[in-house]
Amino acid sequence: MSTTIDIPESSKVVKGKAVVAAPLRPGGWKKGLAILDFILRLGAIAAALGAAATMGTSDQTLPFFTQFFQFEASYDSFTTFQFFVITMALVGGYLVLSLPFSVVAIIRPHAVGPRLFLIILDTVFLTLATASAASAAAVVYLAHNGDQDTNWLAICNQFGDFCAQTSAAVVSSFVAVVVLVLLIVMSALAIGKP
Amino acid sequence: MSTTIDIPESSKVVKGKAVVAAPLRPGGWKKGLAILDFILRLGAIAAALGAAATMGTSDQTLPFFTQFFQFEASYDSFTTFQFFVITMALVGGYLVLSLPFSVVAIIRPHAVGPRLFLIILDTVFLTLATASAASAAAVVYLAHNGDQDTNWLAICNQFGDFCAQTSAAVVSSFVAVVVLVLLIVMSALAIGKP
Repeated sequence: MSTTIDIPESSKVVKGKAVVAAPLRPGGWKKGLAILDFILRLGAIAAALGAAATMGTSDQTLPFFTQFFQFEASYDSFTTFQFFVITMALVGGYLVLSLPFSVVAIIRPHAVGPRLFLIILDTVFLTLATASAASAAAVVYLAHNGDQDTNWLAICNQFGDFCAQTSAAVVSSFVAVVVLVLLIVMSALAIGKP
Repeated sequence: MSTTIDIPESSKVVKGKAVVAAPLRPGGWKKGLAILDFILRLGAIAAALGAAATMGTSDQTLPFFTQFFQFEASYDSFTTFQFFVITMALVGGYLVLSLPFSVVAIIRPHAVGPRLFLIILDTVFLTLATASAASAAAVVYLAHNGDQDTNWLAICNQFGDFCAQTSAAVVSSFVAVVVLVLLIVMSALAIGKP
């Protein structure tokens, strides 16, 4: 009879060991991913807020003017650029607010909840960031090259500084987009793999 | 000694039961999600390929012309619209190729592999689809409203049919984007929840 008691006890010990060992072996891998998630999130915050600030301060007034008109280009000139500033600020704000959840994922590498929460919101804000980055890129492209068939002239010859600044903002926003894609893939891997 | 043999055997039976029972109870919920995934994927295919076809066939020639010039607008007029046609065709093609993986998720609702594969590729193609949809939307907006500061005239007064067709393509592409976001959220929930 003593053997019958021994067997469930030893199996319990094995189970207990498995639970204790789990955070050490595969948890290390997930913890590293969570720390990388946090660092990448900081980079994405810088990229998103930098893009919003760069676009928001873009403003160029040409040094010559006629009696009735002064030539000026700012982000206000294009609705797309206004949308860009607003959405990039939103994405930056969301990323700041998401940092605590990333910290929770570092402290508890095996918890699915915070990563699931992050993956869903990251997807939504990835869509927002991509939409604003791509639409701004389309307008910047038109500003650089113009369009023959519709007789839209390229304005970058006149507004060189304005074009350089908006282009920089678009590049910065695409950095944020790439980082968000990486964040989603990393979260999915951390949830999916045991 | 017979009891010592009984205990591991009975625990094995319980384990076997748990494995058999699992696909019936929570698996039903995941299976439903996988079937919904398949149906939504079909809708996204229709939306993406419809958008590509609508944009690709947009072409309008005005009935009047001068001695040197005939006024014509087609998707070739804008680089953004060419990008739109290519990316939407790519997204549609990817979605068709992803159907078998969705079927695997229906047959094996608890398998993490296919869903993880889908969530990662869905994220990449969501970015592609959103980028082309948003950039085309920015150009369509300019075509409708023009831009005062840069003296780009709205062309939709002249090219009414062209504008209507490209606008329809943009709307259709945003349907595909929304469906892709839903697909990612559903896959994440199916992987994350036990």
